Amino acid sequence: MNNYADRLISAISNKGNPCVVGLDPRLELMPEFIGSQWNKNDIEKAIQFTIRDFHKSILDIVAPLVPAVKLQIAFYEQYGLPGLNAFVDTIRLAKERNLIVIVDAKRNDIASTAEAYANAFLGKSNIFGNKKPIFDVDCITVSPFLGRDSLQPFVKQCADYGKGIFVLVKTSNPGSVDVQDQKLIATKNPLYEELAKMVDELGSQLIGESGYSSIGAVVGATFPEEAVLLRKLMPKAIILVPGYGAQGGTAQDASHCFNPDGLGAVINASRSITYGYKPKEISENEFQITIHKRTLEMIADVNNALKLKRQS
Amino acid sequence: MNNYADRLISAISNKGNPCVVGLDPRLELMPEFIGSQWNKNDIEKAIQFTIRDFHKSILDIVAPLVPAVKLQIAFYEQYGLPGLNAFVDTIRLAKERNLIVIVDAKRNDIASTAEAYANAFLGKSNIFGNKKPIFDVDCITVSPFLGRDSLQPFVKQCADYGKGIFVLVKTSNPGSVDVQDQKLIATKNPLYEELAKMVDELGSQLIGESGYSSIGAVVGATFPEEAVLLRKLMPKAIILVPGYGAQGGTAQDASHCFNPDGLGAVINASRSITYGYKPKEISENEFQITIHKRTLEMIADVNNALKLKRQS
Repeated sequence: MNNYADRLISAISNKGNPCVVGLDPRLELMPEFIGSQWNKNDIEKAIQFTIRDFHKSILDIVAPLVPAVKLQIAFYEQYGLPGLNAFVDTIRLAKERNLIVIVDAKRNDIASTAEAYANAFLGKSNIFGNKKPIFDVDCITVSPFLGRDSLQPFVKQCADYGKGIFVLVKTSNPGSVDVQDQKLIATKNPLYEELAKMVDELGSQLIGESGYSSIGAVVGATFPEEAVLLRKLMPKAIILVPGYGAQGGTAQDASHCFNPDGLGAVINASRSITYGYKPKEISENEFQITIHKRTLEMIADVNNALKLKRQS
Repeated sequence: MNNYADRLISAISNKGNPCVVGLDPRLELMPEFIGSQWNKNDIEKAIQFTIRDFHKSILDIVAPLVPAVKLQIAFYEQYGLPGLNAFVDTIRLAKERNLIVIVDAKRNDIASTAEAYANAFLGKSNIFGNKKPIFDVDCITVSPFLGRDSLQPFVKQCADYGKGIFVLVKTSNPGSVDVQDQKLIATKNPLYEELAKMVDELGSQLIGESGYSSIGAVVGATFPEEAVLLRKLMPKAIILVPGYGAQGGTAQDASHCFNPDGLGAVINASRSITYGYKPKEISENEFQITIHKRTLEMIADVNNALKLKRQS
């Protein structure tokens, strides 16, 4: 299956839920038993292997349960090269477990520079005359701030390599109103509506057998009213919904990002699944039970909200 | 001198020009003599060392001539971990030569994620209880698409660590009109004007003895009319001007980004300095002469345009 949307929809169907677990490394929040065997004098290896081990523990539990994971690359970059080594390790571990891998990178730039980002995450780079995949993930988040021409290299590589993007349309933070909610003289509508139309149009070339497009959008769970409208403006887009859990969005809020068929969106939770226990005290067994329990709770919560939506 | 703007203005004054050389690795465009000693069977080291050697050659020539270099991180990311190793090498080589190091990353995200990016590039990360600098460059470019709250962690770290940011206000690509030029109902002005006011206000806390702020802006040389207005709206901001040279912006176009004192902006050129010869044929000596000649030509061109501006 070489259309990203089809692969994602198929994985959602197989796992029976649209939940995504966020793998965002924060060393100070991880259980103390993780990585305790690594010598802190070899600090680079200790960072890389601690993050890798933490994510391996989580992946072993969540891989049978959810269709996809999302790696927020900022949390890897904050640890420099060892963090980025752990980023590559985590991608590999997730792929080995047949998970769809989404990277939340919010990248973009102009022309050939946008193409370089697309090469890095989705396509291939020219290395001494040979084209080679680099991070080779399924999908990344992309910013539309630089305009339509900046999105084209990503759309092209989605087509060429069976990959996907989620374009930022309405982010989950309070400050998203400053730019994204500005009403435009040209259309009398907020900018996010125009961005949604752009996503819908760019995505029309890449609709799979599932009826969904590989060009998706990010719409925060924290803005349910906007979600209702944006869902209608982008009927074929898969919406990545951040903001569930730790940021205050509920499953019912997020359910507005879904189509009446119960598909068309994935909901991410990071901190509320992977952190928030006592790092010094939690045992390996307690940690595994906690991750498992929270993931099942999220799945039940989301599926219940989708059931209520279908009934309404 | 712990204010970034003061350090940059001082470097401009010492070198007698506001030119920035872009160090954007593209293996297929580099001279063949570069990296020919590295065994292509150890591909990771061959990538890293070829990029490092290329940039070392350039830095040896340009360091005495210009105040700053700009690394476009997309071109390093496209080579994966070896590319990012070369990114760290290039930063070190530039710092050893007392150059101001700007990273063109166009990063941003929400809340704690924006903070993680700021940690990575400007500040320090918490590594097993110790705060450590990571990439530790002088300045990065940042996107304002997620709103004012997404810029705050960067502004705080600029204050705490004597660093700077350039906020995207009006980028050099044709598609920049799609979002940045949209006229807003609230103010009847294009979005870029509102962004300029935000930059001016955020920067008011970080004005150095030079009279300039560590919170700067990106304004493309390809939009000289907009530059005239944006210069007035952000009198204290240092403007990073891309689009000179290969993208078609002239020194006269770029001169609109400067204040009447001849300061307040830096002009970047990447491809037009570092590439565009015959990679298979150029010798080491010819390469050095080419880089030197082009850098001097750019400096003369820019300084001449600034002289004409002061006289007009």
